[in-house]
Amino acid sequence: METCTKEQYQMCPRFEKTFTVLGKKWNGLIINVLLSEGSQRFGEIANKIPNISDRVLVERLKELESEGLVDHVCLSKETKRSEYILTEKGKDLQKSMQAIESWSEKWN
Amino acid sequence: METCTKEQYQMCPRFEKTFTVLGKKWNGLIINVLLSEGSQRFGEIANKIPNISDRVLVERLKELESEGLVDHVCLSKETKRSEYILTEKGKDLQKSMQAIESWSEKWN
Repeated sequence: METCTKEQYQMCPRFEKTFTVLGKKWNGLIINVLLSEGSQRFGEIANKIPNISDRVLVERLKELESEGLVDHVCLSKETKRSEYILTEKGKDLQKSMQAIESWSEKWN
Repeated sequence: METCTKEQYQMCPRFEKTFTVLGKKWNGLIINVLLSEGSQRFGEIANKIPNISDRVLVERLKELESEGLVDHVCLSKETKRSEYILTEKGKDLQKSMQAIESWSEKWN
């Protein structure tokens, strides 16, 4: 893994990448639903996020999967039941999400 | 201040707004420079963020000012010397920034 010294850190691409992923519309909310609720089926996530279209939710879940934050788990091949769950990498975002949540409640 | 219960929180607009501001390209890095270095003149910030144009840095600083995160302090009316410094609201982002930094170093 590439390391960033303090001097370089101010422009560290790994840091910026995290913000790019978390800051993209809906992604923070999707991660938060999965942090709060554990594994969820597609419709359960959709119900908890009003105003997101199915098309966009599919896109975002694929993106979060490709970032290694979310696993898409098949429960039954016959019924095509599946659910989404955070990976260890995704679960480890909890501290960051809570810090941002606390700040938002205090200041926004 | 509008409060968000746990149920509503998953779609809380205050939470999403924080991500929108922090996630916008360069904003996280600008805040981080000011967190690390204290007050900074325009050129000092620009030097620490390679590849950002002066025009974009001006735009972002104005945006962060309008969000109440950054103060633009005039040091001398004669020489037009001024510097940028985080407000209390901006400084209070340190915990969130550190949590995201730690996560990025571990996983990205």
